[in-house]
Amino acid sequence: MITSQAGQQPADFTDVRATNLAVVLRYIRANAPCSRATIAASTGLNKATVSSLVAELIDRRLLRETGLTENRIGRPATMLVLDGAAYAAIGLEVNTDHLTVVAIDLAGERLLSWRRAFAGRRSSPARAVTAVAALARRAVTKVLAEGREVLGLTVGVAGLVGAGGVVRLAPNLGWRDVKLRDALVQALDEPDYPVEVENEANLAARAEFRYGADAGVANLVYLNGQAGVGAGIIADGQLLRGGLGYSGEIGHVRVSPGGPGRDEALCGCGRRGCLEAVAGIRALVARVGTGPDPEDLEPEVEDIVRRARSHEPVVVTALREVGEHLGHAVALLSNVVNPQVVVLGGYFVPLGPWLMSAAESGLRAGSVAPDAGGCRLTASALGQVAAAIGGAASILDAVDAGTLPVPTRTRPPVRASIGTS
Amino acid sequence: MITSQAGQQPADFTDVRATNLAVVLRYIRANAPCSRATIAASTGLNKATVSSLVAELIDRRLLRETGLTENRIGRPATMLVLDGAAYAAIGLEVNTDHLTVVAIDLAGERLLSWRRAFAGRRSSPARAVTAVAALARRAVTKVLAEGREVLGLTVGVAGLVGAGGVVRLAPNLGWRDVKLRDALVQALDEPDYPVEVENEANLAARAEFRYGADAGVANLVYLNGQAGVGAGIIADGQLLRGGLGYSGEIGHVRVSPGGPGRDEALCGCGRRGCLEAVAGIRALVARVGTGPDPEDLEPEVEDIVRRARSHEPVVVTALREVGEHLGHAVALLSNVVNPQVVVLGGYFVPLGPWLMSAAESGLRAGSVAPDAGGCRLTASALGQVAAAIGGAASILDAVDAGTLPVPTRTRPPVRASIGTS
Repeated sequence: MITSQAGQQPADFTDVRATNLAVVLRYIRANAPCSRATIAASTGLNKATVSSLVAELIDRRLLRETGLTENRIGRPATMLVLDGAAYAAIGLEVNTDHLTVVAIDLAGERLLSWRRAFAGRRSSPARAVTAVAALARRAVTKVLAEGREVLGLTVGVAGLVGAGGVVRLAPNLGWRDVKLRDALVQALDEPDYPVEVENEANLAARAEFRYGADAGVANLVYLNGQAGVGAGIIADGQLLRGGLGYSGEIGHVRVSPGGPGRDEALCGCGRRGCLEAVAGIRALVARVGTGPDPEDLEPEVEDIVRRARSHEPVVVTALREVGEHLGHAVALLSNVVNPQVVVLGGYFVPLGPWLMSAAESGLRAGSVAPDAGGCRLTASALGQVAAAIGGAASILDAVDAGTLPVPTRTRPPVRASIGTS
Repeated sequence: MITSQAGQQPADFTDVRATNLAVVLRYIRANAPCSRATIAASTGLNKATVSSLVAELIDRRLLRETGLTENRIGRPATMLVLDGAAYAAIGLEVNTDHLTVVAIDLAGERLLSWRRAFAGRRSSPARAVTAVAALARRAVTKVLAEGREVLGLTVGVAGLVGAGGVVRLAPNLGWRDVKLRDALVQALDEPDYPVEVENEANLAARAEFRYGADAGVANLVYLNGQAGVGAGIIADGQLLRGGLGYSGEIGHVRVSPGGPGRDEALCGCGRRGCLEAVAGIRALVARVGTGPDPEDLEPEVEDIVRRARSHEPVVVTALREVGEHLGHAVALLSNVVNPQVVVLGGYFVPLGPWLMSAAESGLRAGSVAPDAGGCRLTASALGQVAAAIGGAASILDAVDAGTLPVPTRTRPPVRASIGTS
């Protein structure tokens, strides 16, 4: 017998096998160590089927047997655990002032996490591709050197990413219609792992849903504070991408319409009064920063944090106003998608102590539902690497959903270490 | 073997049977008339299983055999069709100025469609329950009299509907924490069919997704123009309800912040500058209507349409400004959830010719994605009964997803007609 999700065509028998492999894999992820008998009893799959599925998963290097056995009547059962070490997923984020890359193994262990300053606003797409490919190659080399196989590379970009990994528009990078995935595949010499490109806030939302302090919360929004401001929306446990994948562009919602005697802030997208033009980190730095327009925002944010700690009035006032604009935006999200939690990410995390109170007030005042519709506001525990983690998580999500890797057994494990920062 | 959706626990064998019954039912809905052999070949279910499933569906009065046979080699195959006539789903909408009720059979035939003026703003919840129950009972009586069984009653309300059918807040009805489902169940003497309560725009979105001109468009928003303004969001083919079911409250997004020399419109929710305070139908009538504050908005809208046709400047200007506010709201939806289509409903349909151009301009201007992210704006073809149709559709959706009715064979079909409007 086969089954099907509501509204979809029934799967064929190959899909049933793949789905059941994924059922076993997810069960072991949640419950390891466990025996074949326990898996059969808990999933409803029969024992022979479980044995066959487990054999295939061991063959694919996704599971391994431990030396442990289960205490029970009869023959001792061999216990199974995830074989996290065999594979690594790589996530990389391209932002206007930095690149980050992380690698995560199948068990969720973080294998590496690097950050590079990156002059995104001055880089042509071609130069960006060179920089991204160089960083990706270095991560791949390290992972391979540890004897792992690369499951995939997912690159997050602060912009609208359409089908085929084409960056349709990235206002803060100055990009339009950049075929980033194709360019990366070429720059990486057509690697044997898949390369994907996705909006960076969407990836960060996946990271929060899989690894964050609110992991598993089915209705979750990630609000990324970088030069730009973007959201990733998880609705009922699924990433909300929309028709063309352009959802979550809260940074370009108008929050500050002018009026007589009021100036409207000009946004990188060419409009006026957008959220990111008044609450983005570059706008904040332009308002209270001390030097010329900087390339890397991180030292500027550190300086703003220092001055806020010293109660410098102009800084505290500016941060409260950013918090008020964020509160308006979060109330809007609360009214439209009714999340259970909005996670502030990126540079909003270090600035959180001075933003949060005004943002929470704005959320409560602007939500029509009592108690803000049950929406909490919190700061990400994943920090600046959330989007890169999300890139890796999206690859692991695909494995969990049944896209299982086939090991390349011909590649010998190399143990020599590659120098890293 | 059993299967499971990603992220869920595996189903047990009872669920597999229910799922397969639903697979066959959906297949026949899409492809009738068809034979058991065709169903087996197309779904991948084996022939014996299909025969058993079909037998059960015939027994449940969901399918019937036709006199037709299929031309083919060998024994002629009996053709199957949906037995639409045996069951009816009833949807009912409570709005501030009217009640609507529809009944639809399993094949999607509309069995009845009634509208009643309703003094919602002057009715206590108790009086509303009496009026709703009376209209529902009348529809149930008609359906039963035609020999059908009632699959369920779903009531849409213009307000925030929480778990258990509790209306947490309905600003335009003046309700707060009304246990509407419980009250209706009691008023209907604990009927043997399920009674549900849901937000009316959510139901209208389901109706558009199932029966509208853009049926099947996976990312669709319905924007209801009544006294209030609310949205129902379909994302990736699923209704987006959010954490507590309060999504789509676009009517209370601030679109008209004041400024020096500007008045902010007071909204029914107590805030100022909300979309519905400037673009809701009651606000429009208050601005250009000629009489005192009316109970029923329908004749007022008809009058406004007449005056707009005569190019009366104050009316044409007011409608263009409503269109501009809608354009701002639709751009916001485009930026946040990236729908493929936004369907304007309710009184926005007759007013569409004078709103649409300004709304489309606002959508294009306010969307950060090129070409509004692929979002079209259109007027509903389902008219004022969309939410009631959606109430019935939500019951049929549940049948399609595997919640199959059990017939009560003891009830004799009665053919006597009950007088109706």
